[in-house]
Amino acid sequence: MILRLQVTPRAQGLCDITAKVRGLVAGVGMLDGLCTLYIQHTSASLLVQENYDSSARDDLESWMNRLVPEGDSLYTHTLEGADDMPAHIKAALTAVSISIPVIAGDLALGAWQGIFLWEHRHSPDERTVILHVA
Amino acid sequence: MILRLQVTPRAQGLCDITAKVRGLVAGVGMLDGLCTLYIQHTSASLLVQENYDSSARDDLESWMNRLVPEGDSLYTHTLEGADDMPAHIKAALTAVSISIPVIAGDLALGAWQGIFLWEHRHSPDERTVILHVA
Amino acid sequence: MILRLQVTPRAQGLCDITAKVRGLVAGVGMLDGLCTLYIQHTSASLLVQENYDSSARDDLESWMNRLVPEGDSLYTHTLEGADDMPAHIKAALTAVSISIPVIAGDLALGAWQGIFLWEHRHSPDERTVILHVA
Repeated sequence: MILRLQVTPRAQGLCDITAKVRGLVAGVGMLDGLCTLYIQHTSASLLVQENYDSSARDDLESWMNRLVPEGDSLYTHTLEGADDMPAHIKAALTAVSISIPVIAGDLALGAWQGIFLWEHRHSPDERTVILHVA
Repeated sequence: MILRLQVTPRAQGLCDITAKVRGLVAGVGMLDGLCTLYIQHTSASLLVQENYDSSARDDLESWMNRLVPEGDSLYTHTLEGADDMPAHIKAALTAVSISIPVIAGDLALGAWQGIFLWEHRHSPDERTVILHVA
Repeated sequence: MILRLQVTPRAQGLCDITAKVRGLVAGVGMLDGLCTLYIQHTSASLLVQENYDSSARDDLESWMNRLVPEGDSLYTHTLEGADDMPAHIKAALTAVSISIPVIAGDLALGAWQGIFLWEHRHSPDERTVILHVA
């Protein structure tokens, strides 16, 4: 089954979509199987990461922003804004698709795992994540 | 269904395989499902990235080549050429498998997404990508 | 079918799980299909990488440890030890799930590919990898 999840991040950073994905999967009523998430964008990506202590996510974002800074003199692709080329690079370093097993009707996330849409732009529009559940 | 895609990149860099993958998937005649790409190599990888402006892909390659340069004094694995160890690292940082939903018989790529084989060596041989469509 | 693989890495680094995954898949008795691995942790990850020359894996680990060092003054998430925040970053840069086609009852790995659990902590506990085979 194919499902769509529309998300509008408020800003650059990690947007927790765990509950939304879990709800969509529960609605399918499948006991065991696989849920694959696919994001239809190249300046946002998917991440399974620590869900408990927000300082871990803050550090992850700070680290990534330092690794892939805006205003790097290497960039020639600058017409769409200073945050656009870093966004493409960050997306390339993370995941466009993630597959999570479903066991007894629920996502088989680890105890400390959450699912995040990682928005890499400052003024994001609505983002679309496609779910394949089977 | 399992399909094979043979690609011979001309040089180091991003090789657009979108049309080839799309053609193989169309040939299966499946309406809704999932297409998983898997690359059988450790010095080339898979990427979904901006398909429109080639400057974004050029910058991505330049950035990655600066992050993972040849001739780094850290490398001890040097017998297979100066581009071999950087190729393994770049492959580790990107994807060996990507899963893309199929909707109404076509890959559910976003408007600005293309599928690329990222060749990390300078004188590549033929590369094999396995497709699982179901 | 859902299977569980428990692994206890001895130390930080790449732990070869190819034979274990291959054995589990063979036990399913499926001819053609897809094997998806999912790791239920955020300080360890999955990697398909060169299986032959251990110097390639040593260099990969050295390179990653240099890119994401312990003791970085950027980190605020430090309560769980000096290796914890680097572990989360390394996990974000690599894979939480990998899908490998199964052909004629065996994983369609390339000739030089092995499957590794990449342990990012120094004193790891048991790790759980979920396999979905269908």
